[in-house]
Amino acid sequence: MTDPFVPGPRTQVAGIASGPLAGMTFAVKDLIDVAGVPTGGGNPDWPRVYPTPARHAWVVQTLLDAGASIVGKTVTDEVSLGILGENAFDGTPLNPAVPDRVPGGSSSGSASAVASGLCDFALGTDSGGSVRVPSSFCGLYGIRPTHGRIDFSGITVQSPSADTCGWFARDAATFAKVGETLFGMKMPDALPTTLLVATDAFGFADDDVQQALMPMLDRLAALIGTRTDVTMAPQGLSVWQRAQRVLQSSESWKTFEPWLDTCNPRMAFNVARGLIIGSMLTDAERNAATLMRIEARARMKSLLPPGTVLCLPTTPFPAPLKGLSLRTLNPLRERISCLTSHGGLTGVPQVNLPGATVAGAPVGLSIVGGRGTDLALLRIALAMGG
Amino acid sequence: MTDPFVPGPRTQVAGIASGPLAGMTFAVKDLIDVAGVPTGGGNPDWPRVYPTPARHAWVVQTLLDAGASIVGKTVTDEVSLGILGENAFDGTPLNPAVPDRVPGGSSSGSASAVASGLCDFALGTDSGGSVRVPSSFCGLYGIRPTHGRIDFSGITVQSPSADTCGWFARDAATFAKVGETLFGMKMPDALPTTLLVATDAFGFADDDVQQALMPMLDRLAALIGTRTDVTMAPQGLSVWQRAQRVLQSSESWKTFEPWLDTCNPRMAFNVARGLIIGSMLTDAERNAATLMRIEARARMKSLLPPGTVLCLPTTPFPAPLKGLSLRTLNPLRERISCLTSHGGLTGVPQVNLPGATVAGAPVGLSIVGGRGTDLALLRIALAMGG
Repeated sequence: MTDPFVPGPRTQVAGIASGPLAGMTFAVKDLIDVAGVPTGGGNPDWPRVYPTPARHAWVVQTLLDAGASIVGKTVTDEVSLGILGENAFDGTPLNPAVPDRVPGGSSSGSASAVASGLCDFALGTDSGGSVRVPSSFCGLYGIRPTHGRIDFSGITVQSPSADTCGWFARDAATFAKVGETLFGMKMPDALPTTLLVATDAFGFADDDVQQALMPMLDRLAALIGTRTDVTMAPQGLSVWQRAQRVLQSSESWKTFEPWLDTCNPRMAFNVARGLIIGSMLTDAERNAATLMRIEARARMKSLLPPGTVLCLPTTPFPAPLKGLSLRTLNPLRERISCLTSHGGLTGVPQVNLPGATVAGAPVGLSIVGGRGTDLALLRIALAMGG
Repeated sequence: MTDPFVPGPRTQVAGIASGPLAGMTFAVKDLIDVAGVPTGGGNPDWPRVYPTPARHAWVVQTLLDAGASIVGKTVTDEVSLGILGENAFDGTPLNPAVPDRVPGGSSSGSASAVASGLCDFALGTDSGGSVRVPSSFCGLYGIRPTHGRIDFSGITVQSPSADTCGWFARDAATFAKVGETLFGMKMPDALPTTLLVATDAFGFADDDVQQALMPMLDRLAALIGTRTDVTMAPQGLSVWQRAQRVLQSSESWKTFEPWLDTCNPRMAFNVARGLIIGSMLTDAERNAATLMRIEARARMKSLLPPGTVLCLPTTPFPAPLKGLSLRTLNPLRERISCLTSHGGLTGVPQVNLPGATVAGAPVGLSIVGGRGTDLALLRIALAMGG
């Protein structure tokens, strides 16, 4: 099974005839409401507690109102819990660049649909890396917006303090145009003027990934100007990761526990395990993680004044092979989240730039800005992609 | 979904033309091998690691050789992990006595098929109560044989130190005849002469269950003669239960961990949770449980010399309603296992005698003998049922 779209009749909704996105097509992750269509959530028992929505999610309505048309709802990791894109019920959407590898998740079908040319762009969600990881693995532009900036109404909640709604595109112009529509603002004309290179994050990536990203990093530095090496997480990326895992797992448990209790849903073993780990965390662990979040937010704020962006590898390696054992995959998941956890922890926006490969497999370079600088990141993407 | 048989084509195998069970029909729990038929194990991902068997399980071959014919394979709780009989994939087999209630598990479909009159008898397995609980809830004769006495080859292992293969029947004559076939011996002519009443176990049951069982207990005492009240578990039934849960959960984890690792199977949340709890137990907990097992075995051996049997309520209450929340069901599961854990802990045989009801719902009286006294228990069943 490699279809990026969910099983059953294809969901299609035409946008209005004119508008900035007229003629464009998009796909919608099956955690985002389309009126009248059950939101499947990637799990056969999710619609038992999530009633068929009467209204479109805010993002969907806004895109339809701008002229774009829906061509389908896409496969997701179960209730967004996963970053690899292997769904035990709906299968693994194709990663067209490297068909023997996973597409990344949880917005797996949205990334796959865009990468396969089945639509112009696609909506995803990103709590722990669910847009950033598949955009790196599939070679796409992808954004995790500033936390709280895109209206989340009509989207299935996972961890409210980390949940965001983002999107994928193949080309920078489409990518930026969707952003101008959803943010309701034009991009700034000027590019940022300072580029920070997160040496701890680069050091965390495989050597061949570091090498593969160097030409992109050089182009980016040439575009922006000043280039400075910094340590992004003085406490350690793995320390940030541990804090964010505590916060996100605790919130996920709180979100899904009533569903688990009343429905005893079918789910892949590792999804259940992740939820159960969340149920066993203590207030002491949550309190320590909350303090680390304060420190991490302060760090990102001081690193990223207006006009400054930070770059890092989006993932430490390209997409793993499909069908690996949990024993093999679990350490890979942990390593990936060391590079993505800062997003949920601090709320800053991040854009994945495609363009590098390792042995033919895509891997992306990320740019991160201070809170609210989403449009400046889109401006960089356009400059790099143009 | 209330079919006791597994989805798909019905498995039918004719027994030989003559023999002690000629003309009889039986059903086979889908954890027990029938040659050429995938053993489903109650989970859609179990056949991925459990190859289609080339041979019948020993019990199946023995029954076919005695003239009985297979009429179907029956629904089971996932890989035998459950005692209520609600399978999230295959549904809940009908409990014909009380259609709004669960049939009990894990040998749910076997109990349902016999209780519904679809076959003369049916095979189940019992590690933690999987024959005894459904026989109590459905109003059937049911046996958990002495551990190790019935050849387990060709049956899916769960917890080797507790696993047994038993059977259900509606009438005592059929029930006993199957026993003589599988044990390869005739029943003794004489009945036991001493009846012990486990007052701690009776005290653990609901008041109305105790009352409902009194007439059966009086008949049993009249049949046997001497009647003495005893405390079955001086350390506490709940202490025995905790020890057995540690041992059984540890063994289950060891059994299924390779499958979980390679297949990441789909399973109901509570099944995953039970396995994960097993993964977190410590050697210290296992060591303490092993010592308690030694004490419990010694206790049962001293209580049950030849000629003595013990009786207790099989379950503390009749079948719960279907579809209850985990929050409601989990304490019920724990309470049930306080009355069943002695079986896996000590290995003694146990027979459920039907005949009592509470508000129309069946509940059974159990007789337990020393190791190897299975046929004496069948003799009692025949005397009570005749």
